[in-house]
Amino acid sequence: MKEFTSHAPAVKRIAESTVRRLSIYLRFLEEFEGRGLSTVSSEELARRGGTTSAQVRKDLSFFGSFGKRGLGYSVPELSASLREILGLEKEWRVVIIGAGKIGAALAQYRGFRQRGFNILAVYDTNPEKIGRMLEGIEIRDMRRFEADVKAEHPEIAVIAIPGEGAQEVLDRIVRTGIKAVLNFAPVQLHAPADVTVKAVNMAMELEGLSFALTNRE
Amino acid sequence: MKEFTSHAPAVKRIAESTVRRLSIYLRFLEEFEGRGLSTVSSEELARRGGTTSAQVRKDLSFFGSFGKRGLGYSVPELSASLREILGLEKEWRVVIIGAGKIGAALAQYRGFRQRGFNILAVYDTNPEKIGRMLEGIEIRDMRRFEADVKAEHPEIAVIAIPGEGAQEVLDRIVRTGIKAVLNFAPVQLHAPADVTVKAVNMAMELEGLSFALTNRE
Repeated sequence: MKEFTSHAPAVKRIAESTVRRLSIYLRFLEEFEGRGLSTVSSEELARRGGTTSAQVRKDLSFFGSFGKRGLGYSVPELSASLREILGLEKEWRVVIIGAGKIGAALAQYRGFRQRGFNILAVYDTNPEKIGRMLEGIEIRDMRRFEADVKAEHPEIAVIAIPGEGAQEVLDRIVRTGIKAVLNFAPVQLHAPADVTVKAVNMAMELEGLSFALTNRE
Repeated sequence: MKEFTSHAPAVKRIAESTVRRLSIYLRFLEEFEGRGLSTVSSEELARRGGTTSAQVRKDLSFFGSFGKRGLGYSVPELSASLREILGLEKEWRVVIIGAGKIGAALAQYRGFRQRGFNILAVYDTNPEKIGRMLEGIEIRDMRRFEADVKAEHPEIAVIAIPGEGAQEVLDRIVRTGIKAVLNFAPVQLHAPADVTVKAVNMAMELEGLSFALTNRE
């Protein structure tokens, strides 16, 4: 078996797919916690996550030494570690740009607050929407955006507007100093290297299924 | 450089991350086509896609031999090949289960039809919603679901309901013979091996950003 040093290499290099699996493992661990289980094997995590136990051990080994050979992982310890690794021990302040259908769906998404993502406000340019509330969250005038960021220090911005204006909005976000952006606009956006932009593209998700259907055996 | 045989191995084994990059390359190629460019280098594709030219060549090599050394790729040929590989040459029939905010946002998402994903109907159990239209798409009684699938043969189902009922809905989908499912419910679902279930989890997308913010240098 390939060995990893306990001093993790530059964590920055961890692949997005690894981080995604950590999120999935954490969900299983929390489910096990809820059921009162105290230990779990890499095989069980692998089976639930649709991967291999070698992959589970490799994913976790990036971040240190977990579990004991033959004893498996302690459920509360590993879930606490994963929450720490994923940065979920603190509350993150999030702003959403765009009060359309996607912005509204995100604002009412209960899963965010459960995970410590606190949505401060939704921004829009439409005077008919500004001032209204979405699930207790205010729709604010986009003209206030820069001043609000200065006062409230959100760490994450979500772009939920059509493709056309998205790069301009991202440039405004970047200038405020926000370093993490989730982009729902169906266009590729360009940001400085120190800003992380994650894209959620609904058509691309369906393309993954189209690929799977086309390449079935 | 590692060599790949032109006879691709079982395509089924292609990683989800590879398929995602193919979707991204296709978007760049279509943009290049729109600008009238006829060739593109692996370096240019890599630069735009935030990856390496070796990765681009490796991704494409799974599916055959593209491009000529020193000449790059033909933009129309490569984009046609990628559309074929991704199964985008045909129209896919899609049904959405759940006419809530996410279901409604998906029904009105223009990017689907542009890509050949034809949304046949949205299903719900709420009598107040049944019969209404969403962007020209009918909200139908979920009790009709099985009969409709038999008559209309959708290939892809999207689950856009809360977590509680999601497994039961997936079981119904599976029994109709649909083999591809996009799941927006924030729970892990279990399906037979011949059914592809792709999960879109908004909280997990934000966790990827939380990880990036937490592990900055």
